[in-house]
Amino acid sequence: MAEQPSYPTALGASDPTTIRLLGTDLAADVMGEVGFGELAFWLATQERPTPGQVRVFEAVLAALADHGFTPTAIVTRLTYLSAPDSIQGALAAGLLGGGSRFLGVTEDTGRFLHDVLAGEEQLPAVDDAAGWDALALETVRAQRAAKRFVPGLGHHVHKEGDPRTPRLMQIAREEGQFGPHLALFEAIGRVHPQVLGRTLPLNGAGVCGAALADLGLPLPLLRGFALLARTAGLIGQLAEELRHPVANDIFLSVDLNNRSVAPDPWTDGTP
Amino acid sequence: MAEQPSYPTALGASDPTTIRLLGTDLAADVMGEVGFGELAFWLATQERPTPGQVRVFEAVLAALADHGFTPTAIVTRLTYLSAPDSIQGALAAGLLGGGSRFLGVTEDTGRFLHDVLAGEEQLPAVDDAAGWDALALETVRAQRAAKRFVPGLGHHVHKEGDPRTPRLMQIAREEGQFGPHLALFEAIGRVHPQVLGRTLPLNGAGVCGAALADLGLPLPLLRGFALLARTAGLIGQLAEELRHPVANDIFLSVDLNNRSVAPDPWTDGTP
Amino acid sequence: MAEQPSYPTALGASDPTTIRLLGTDLAADVMGEVGFGELAFWLATQERPTPGQVRVFEAVLAALADHGFTPTAIVTRLTYLSAPDSIQGALAAGLLGGGSRFLGVTEDTGRFLHDVLAGEEQLPAVDDAAGWDALALETVRAQRAAKRFVPGLGHHVHKEGDPRTPRLMQIAREEGQFGPHLALFEAIGRVHPQVLGRTLPLNGAGVCGAALADLGLPLPLLRGFALLARTAGLIGQLAEELRHPVANDIFLSVDLNNRSVAPDPWTDGTP
Amino acid sequence: MAEQPSYPTALGASDPTTIRLLGTDLAADVMGEVGFGELAFWLATQERPTPGQVRVFEAVLAALADHGFTPTAIVTRLTYLSAPDSIQGALAAGLLGGGSRFLGVTEDTGRFLHDVLAGEEQLPAVDDAAGWDALALETVRAQRAAKRFVPGLGHHVHKEGDPRTPRLMQIAREEGQFGPHLALFEAIGRVHPQVLGRTLPLNGAGVCGAALADLGLPLPLLRGFALLARTAGLIGQLAEELRHPVANDIFLSVDLNNRSVAPDPWTDGTP
Repeated sequence: MAEQPSYPTALGASDPTTIRLLGTDLAADVMGEVGFGELAFWLATQERPTPGQVRVFEAVLAALADHGFTPTAIVTRLTYLSAPDSIQGALAAGLLGGGSRFLGVTEDTGRFLHDVLAGEEQLPAVDDAAGWDALALETVRAQRAAKRFVPGLGHHVHKEGDPRTPRLMQIAREEGQFGPHLALFEAIGRVHPQVLGRTLPLNGAGVCGAALADLGLPLPLLRGFALLARTAGLIGQLAEELRHPVANDIFLSVDLNNRSVAPDPWTDGTP
Repeated sequence: MAEQPSYPTALGASDPTTIRLLGTDLAADVMGEVGFGELAFWLATQERPTPGQVRVFEAVLAALADHGFTPTAIVTRLTYLSAPDSIQGALAAGLLGGGSRFLGVTEDTGRFLHDVLAGEEQLPAVDDAAGWDALALETVRAQRAAKRFVPGLGHHVHKEGDPRTPRLMQIAREEGQFGPHLALFEAIGRVHPQVLGRTLPLNGAGVCGAALADLGLPLPLLRGFALLARTAGLIGQLAEELRHPVANDIFLSVDLNNRSVAPDPWTDGTP
Repeated sequence: MAEQPSYPTALGASDPTTIRLLGTDLAADVMGEVGFGELAFWLATQERPTPGQVRVFEAVLAALADHGFTPTAIVTRLTYLSAPDSIQGALAAGLLGGGSRFLGVTEDTGRFLHDVLAGEEQLPAVDDAAGWDALALETVRAQRAAKRFVPGLGHHVHKEGDPRTPRLMQIAREEGQFGPHLALFEAIGRVHPQVLGRTLPLNGAGVCGAALADLGLPLPLLRGFALLARTAGLIGQLAEELRHPVANDIFLSVDLNNRSVAPDPWTDGTP
Repeated sequence: MAEQPSYPTALGASDPTTIRLLGTDLAADVMGEVGFGELAFWLATQERPTPGQVRVFEAVLAALADHGFTPTAIVTRLTYLSAPDSIQGALAAGLLGGGSRFLGVTEDTGRFLHDVLAGEEQLPAVDDAAGWDALALETVRAQRAAKRFVPGLGHHVHKEGDPRTPRLMQIAREEGQFGPHLALFEAIGRVHPQVLGRTLPLNGAGVCGAALADLGLPLPLLRGFALLARTAGLIGQLAEELRHPVANDIFLSVDLNNRSVAPDPWTDGTP
């Protein structure tokens, strides 16, 4: 290759006396001035968020940081048990569980709502509940007709209502960040019993996806914000494991209860 | 095994109507009330930090979030290029570079200072510069006699001084969080030329380790906080890669400049 | 929970004097008796493969082990540079690039062929070239009509033909392992110019997917076998990096050629 | 930077008609001709191993491939449960447990024996049992005096003897690969009761480290070979999980047995 390419970036850059980040002086104008949630938002969008946006964003991160003994938390603890020399490995292993099933609902809900909104020529005003109800009804009916779930509807524990959902909507309203994604999601919560014949809660991870989309954060990275929140949670899990370890008990509860069975040859039914 | 063990935790716990985290009601008392840096601190220590602690902690996270095209940033971008279906994989791959060489200085400095302080029966008052200078001199001499480096001393770019170092010390002083680790580190900065015969800068990643130790955060997890900061930075790298991609150019600049050489058999000199 | 569950497995189990694996005595009947490719096949299917199956399987693994400076190889080298204390981290980071784009063609091709075959009531005999050509023609036409690519068709370097493809077909024929997936793939290679109007090579990674499917290996894990092969390749990359390092040069070629640009605020077009 | 660097490699290289690997033609001379264990050895050393070396190497890989419900196996299954879309993530997460504690004994034993041998001016002949016993006695005494364990001595299950140990030594002898590392390790097995006052088994993972060192494989990568073996084992775990899932039961056995406790503030005793 004849020529050396160059690599543009608006992120970190250093010279002997200064460190710049996003067009600002890191030491003078970021350190001590910008909170961590604010910085994470800014890094993702390359635009400094308003205080209201930061409050909603940090409420989302709080909602997703830790849910106790999830598979990701167990994985981080077991990996630390097995390889205590590598904190980065224990955290990375936990994050790898942040895929379609457990963390996916945030992303799926945000994208789903976005796709519905993108298909409309004109949206109701944010406070036009009847307008949103009409769109929500059409949306839920279309999903049902296609035999598809509505992402973000239902929760295996909080069957009567996920406490994060009304709280996040309230915060978004207080901060003027309640936009069309949240409005549509809220309306789905009101109208779906007419179509489905039973009442399901609006999932807290789902409402987070709606809020992140209303904040204008990159849809392809919604899962990334759940992972950022979870990184803080996994550090908490490790800090607890250091002093009140459970990983070895978990390991033994599996290993000592193994039951040896005969091999079961794979037959995949290919012709 | 006869009995099913139970697994204690002070972290997340749910029942049908409530989610609790660290002994508080997540929806009512954490969401909208607690910033993300504050929450990460609280999760790690199980004690809610003061506003002053939070400001210093978030300044540290800002200092460590992104340094441009580091190996970890390149790794995250290349992994996304290769496996765009898995955001969690791209982030995890980047974090795996957070080991002894690039992120280690934060942890090494914190631990080193802690070990020196733990070996003293009585410490100088925080503002007793002469007292800290004496301890620092003894410390630097002992390291030199043992032919060991002083962690956190020196920087390959900021040879005249890392701009993060005085700024973080200033913030820690403003918030009453300037403790013995920072005091000793600062004194090392003053006295080391007497011993080493040349003046080296106090590294910004090193001063972060000193500040985290003064905040009382878990020493075995100092690397974890650098990784948390870096997670936000890597999301920024991905967000930029989505719109201004460079990973394929990086890949091609290596692949197209490969030079085929003959195999070179391994001989490890074992007898 | 009242009762402790038990966990069935046909894989490894130990008692004080014996280790069993897949219903056999590991020390007596596996070690020294079973090759590593053979063992990997056996672990995946829980049925010991024939020598002919092993030869085809190991030919596939050889075909996929290393392709020089791929993104995964670069990632493993950069991660080792950054965290030399963690070999497992460097290997894991490299494997995380084994997703849809670079390693996916093996899996995609195997699945695609399988789906076509599963939709047929009666398949041609393996040596009935005309019968396969007819099915292949129908298949390529259907993909074209749906504006979809045929997985495994085309290669960005081996435009005149991937040398692995005829070789793997020959080995499969020699060993009596040339089944319907390979037969259909070969026929696609013959007939696609009639439909597409130009001649594309059958990709070597694609033919590996066809061969793995004909071997009866689990379709949902086809990517796993590519990753197994790649693990050996990445160890080779690390062994070379230890003695002939290039990672720091790669890092510097990016970092020193960074070009600072102004932030570009994200606007995702959401309403 | 003025000049574009070039990157030397003896590994994979392609041109439009040929793929070369380690100085050979991949399609013609590797596929169908070289077993997978043989190829992995060759990639690591850049020298083609003899059949005897391959047999010992593959016996080591068999010994280390799977031990049932280890933390790494549980982690891979839980990660798949949580993120079934990413096979590479599930495998990578499992490998991240391959650190100092569970897989470390292979590496630690190989390095330890190597260091002892490297400190001797003249080694006994391989069959000079008395000579090795003398060196072993000196070695065990020195470790005891330094209050350090002898790596590879002892096993938590196989207290009367690990069945892999004599078997691997036998295979190495049959193939003329029984060298000084195995000779010293075997002698440690004979003499340590004189020093320690009790008889411990020679660990099977430890004897694998000795055998890999005698094979001349790179000592800094001994852990890598254990990880290669484990990759095959983890694919087996996933294949079993697909049909006989246990991960959700494991998750629930932890989550449903969580016990909420009060936060326990971290106090690290720093001054």
